[in-house]
Amino acid sequence: PGKNVLIVYAHQEPKSFNGSLLKIAVEELTKQGCSVTVSDLYAMQFEPRATRNDIVGEPSQNIPLSKKSDFSRGYNCPCLLLEMDDLPVESFPLFWFNMPAILKGWMDRVLVQGFAYDLSKVYDGGLLQDKLSLFSFTTGGSKEKYAIRGDIRYLLWPMQHGIMHFCGVKVLEPHICYAPENVSEEKRKEMLAAWSQRLKTLWKEEPIDCSPEWYFK
Amino acid sequence: PGKNVLIVYAHQEPKSFNGSLLKIAVEELTKQGCSVTVSDLYAMQFEPRATRNDIVGEPSQNIPLSKKSDFSRGYNCPCLLLEMDDLPVESFPLFWFNMPAILKGWMDRVLVQGFAYDLSKVYDGGLLQDKLSLFSFTTGGSKEKYAIRGDIRYLLWPMQHGIMHFCGVKVLEPHICYAPENVSEEKRKEMLAAWSQRLKTLWKEEPIDCSPEWYFK
Repeated sequence: PGKNVLIVYAHQEPKSFNGSLLKIAVEELTKQGCSVTVSDLYAMQFEPRATRNDIVGEPSQNIPLSKKSDFSRGYNCPCLLLEMDDLPVESFPLFWFNMPAILKGWMDRVLVQGFAYDLSKVYDGGLLQDKLSLFSFTTGGSKEKYAIRGDIRYLLWPMQHGIMHFCGVKVLEPHICYAPENVSEEKRKEMLAAWSQRLKTLWKEEPIDCSPEWYFK
Repeated sequence: PGKNVLIVYAHQEPKSFNGSLLKIAVEELTKQGCSVTVSDLYAMQFEPRATRNDIVGEPSQNIPLSKKSDFSRGYNCPCLLLEMDDLPVESFPLFWFNMPAILKGWMDRVLVQGFAYDLSKVYDGGLLQDKLSLFSFTTGGSKEKYAIRGDIRYLLWPMQHGIMHFCGVKVLEPHICYAPENVSEEKRKEMLAAWSQRLKTLWKEEPIDCSPEWYFK
């Protein structure tokens, strides 16, 4: 109640299963009195490429351009400054053990130095340490397929630890819907109901312990 | 000698350290008699977003669009079909424990079903099993910084295993240059020389064992 929620949504098709998950999240969280904002990246035609257009001044020689993004000196995409709020929920289909490029581009361009982290202000001291996050995604393969070779948690390390934890953002348990396209309509409905149910008590959840043990125990 | 090499390069600035690494690779491999092709993603203004423009026909309801890419039914970006060859070398600065979005978009849009994998033709049976790959990248943080929390190999899992190994592509040891922007000019020159040196005997290298143990032992 009174919480601000930003949903960064990365699916092309409103009628997709991801679209249904989004709709449920917006409805349930709004009903709770949260203020919900959706960044629908494909609909916004969000630019995933980090280029010199994002950078003020001339890049120095031999320094990777990305490192020159300096929020404090004036980041020239003001629309991006509004993109972080109490609870960012990342919502997407898993592409290649990872986020789709358009969502990775959101991370690359929004979470800049001076805004999300700064020199030694990282991890528990990151600049976004009063925020919570949650990754909600669907997969192509079944749960069993992901378990054959290791554990699905392995692929969460770069997203949850390398991005969110690095910026100080606490991380709730991810919400994974396995292979919605390969299950029955009834099972899909169960998955949607489970998401709705989880959202009802979301604010009582404890963040995960974002240590290597959680991922690779 | 006689090998075809594709370098997928993702840096905005030719004068960057990544640009120098690219130049060395092109020179050394050409000198060996390899046929070297460079996909300079930023220069090509490569589109990282996978949209319905990539898809033939109408997407079905409730099915994630990405799954509808069907190479065999006619993939409508023919320029992308040429993108795989004997040795893809991915060359990029690490952004957020991961590839930059533009390179992730290359993976999303080039490695489509029917071309890179197919139903049960995955991992050692993947469709690109006669190919080798190598990830060459630079980092912002020092080697020590990456070792504080786990191991840099953790973040290689989605890229090397989840993408390359999944398609059957064998993976050579990654080539990592740590924090080139924070070291002396002399150290940078040493790093460039080491890359050049490694390339001289590259074709004698054995691929890594792409099992969970390699990453998380």
